[in-house]
Amino acid sequence: MKAVGFYKYLPISDVNSLIDLEVSIPKLESNQVLIEVKAISVNPIDTKIRASKLQIKSFPRILGWDGAGTIVARGVKTNVFNTGDDVIFTGDISKNGSNCQYVALEELFVAPKPKNLTFEQAAAMPLTTVTAYEAIYDRLLLSAKDKGKSLLIINSGGGVGSVATQLAANLNLRVIGTVSRIETEEFSKKNGADVVIKHTHDLIPQLEVHGFSNGVDYILANYDPYPYWDVMMKAIKPQGKICLIVDSSGLVDIRPLKDKSITLVSEMMATRIKYDTEDKGRHHEILKIASKMFDDGILKSTLTKTLSPINAATLREAHKIIEEKRMVGKLVLSG
Amino acid sequence: MKAVGFYKYLPISDVNSLIDLEVSIPKLESNQVLIEVKAISVNPIDTKIRASKLQIKSFPRILGWDGAGTIVARGVKTNVFNTGDDVIFTGDISKNGSNCQYVALEELFVAPKPKNLTFEQAAAMPLTTVTAYEAIYDRLLLSAKDKGKSLLIINSGGGVGSVATQLAANLNLRVIGTVSRIETEEFSKKNGADVVIKHTHDLIPQLEVHGFSNGVDYILANYDPYPYWDVMMKAIKPQGKICLIVDSSGLVDIRPLKDKSITLVSEMMATRIKYDTEDKGRHHEILKIASKMFDDGILKSTLTKTLSPINAATLREAHKIIEEKRMVGKLVLSG
Repeated sequence: MKAVGFYKYLPISDVNSLIDLEVSIPKLESNQVLIEVKAISVNPIDTKIRASKLQIKSFPRILGWDGAGTIVARGVKTNVFNTGDDVIFTGDISKNGSNCQYVALEELFVAPKPKNLTFEQAAAMPLTTVTAYEAIYDRLLLSAKDKGKSLLIINSGGGVGSVATQLAANLNLRVIGTVSRIETEEFSKKNGADVVIKHTHDLIPQLEVHGFSNGVDYILANYDPYPYWDVMMKAIKPQGKICLIVDSSGLVDIRPLKDKSITLVSEMMATRIKYDTEDKGRHHEILKIASKMFDDGILKSTLTKTLSPINAATLREAHKIIEEKRMVGKLVLSG
Repeated sequence: MKAVGFYKYLPISDVNSLIDLEVSIPKLESNQVLIEVKAISVNPIDTKIRASKLQIKSFPRILGWDGAGTIVARGVKTNVFNTGDDVIFTGDISKNGSNCQYVALEELFVAPKPKNLTFEQAAAMPLTTVTAYEAIYDRLLLSAKDKGKSLLIINSGGGVGSVATQLAANLNLRVIGTVSRIETEEFSKKNGADVVIKHTHDLIPQLEVHGFSNGVDYILANYDPYPYWDVMMKAIKPQGKICLIVDSSGLVDIRPLKDKSITLVSEMMATRIKYDTEDKGRHHEILKIASKMFDDGILKSTLTKTLSPINAATLREAHKIIEEKRMVGKLVLSG
């Protein structure tokens, strides 16, 4: 089958950073389904792994853990899906991904494709939705009881930020998004942000202008927390909670957490899979819930850009756009 | 009335670091009760404020936010207690404390003295119990559903650690305490620790020996987290929670929190009072619950040492013992 992958960690400007490959169709294990890939999404995690210098044992390395397709075969021990089912899926980042024609996955990573979304619109959603859902529900522990509380979403125009905005708005929280550009401001409002401020300027006076002089109840930081650390310590209310989804680029002073008895929680979609936790079935459950939320119109696809066809050249272009932080919403490859 | 306080921040070896004073009985406000102090407890916070170099506006500074006594007068707007009631109390560390004959406090800081405890045994408890209760119930969000889960209590022989051990054992968690001395090992076991290990040695191999090779569900760090940071990151299970009650002496690398989606939460008893939070009544509620837990025999006093009389010389001796970390359990002054 066709695939896109690499043998060496190279900058995206290098023509060999992602190359067209011919590899065998993955051997289907008894607890896996085989999916014909129709559309794939590109996420920051893809560019980070491509740029990594870690030793990876088996080359070629094939990226991509987010997409949509159709089930073409199933292992004897699978019981959720049938061949012919259209599905969305994430994946296990410790293994090869879905930048290829066929991918074999445990049912844990798969959910029905929302019926009212195209393959491209659907492929844009799994990874960011699972991450945003875990951040909102499992890490910040938000629920309907938090109606009216305030949530500051730093970088609300990105992949996870734009789904988190929709989820929080659906819980009737007051969402303050941060963006740098006029396009992302409009996009964030469309996703349900009540207020959108600029992270290119000091956040504190902007929060004050919008009536948040006493701070916000929750913060979700979809960006390196290091440059925002001091401002987050100021902006958060006593007993507030902060969720991080991006690594800090520097060491931080955790002492200010104490004065206000603050909770700091980190979210990574891969945790349950990587550590084979007792509740790893939650991953599948969230994918299913999300799929239904799309069907019910509670969530809308955040797809904003589609490139085609799926090959090395297009994928290099996609990585370049992500690395240059030029995206608003999500980028998908199809065809 | 007699009081012990200071005009200058001085080392405890200096005879003027804490001095005997004669000051006026505090003016009772309408929402306060006046308490005749029978016994006071000394906590690390007293020594930290005494050693502070911050500018404090009104001298003399009188320390002590933990004690037991009898209500001798009440403001017209109070409605919980009557004169003659024996009570326990904490206090507001931004104001002068209870190292004196009479203290005026809002009812928020006061609860009935447990009937089966002496004034000395009772005075040992309020501050550490509120802190431990908040850490276990309000920060780590532990409850009866966590039966059988594991909690590592770093420095389980100190004031907060010894109450937290009792509270967690009462919730049927498996408590692993850490101590440095044989006296604290026995004390921790008496408080309900299932396993006691030495924080003078590497914790990881000791946890392995006791069957915690896969880590622990929760950690409560009653000590500077800086030297324990790496070991906590190793010892905590995926999706586990860590509660800190002591400031970190250095900057930390928060990146390892992400891989396991860890929650880090800080606890300070003063937060609700300092920030006048909507739920500040919780402070009084916890004091009342704790008092009943002592009455019901669920909690036992952690008093281990009583000095008397209450004067500057005895209080200097108490501060010295705390600063030299020689205490097991709690130290009280009376008489």
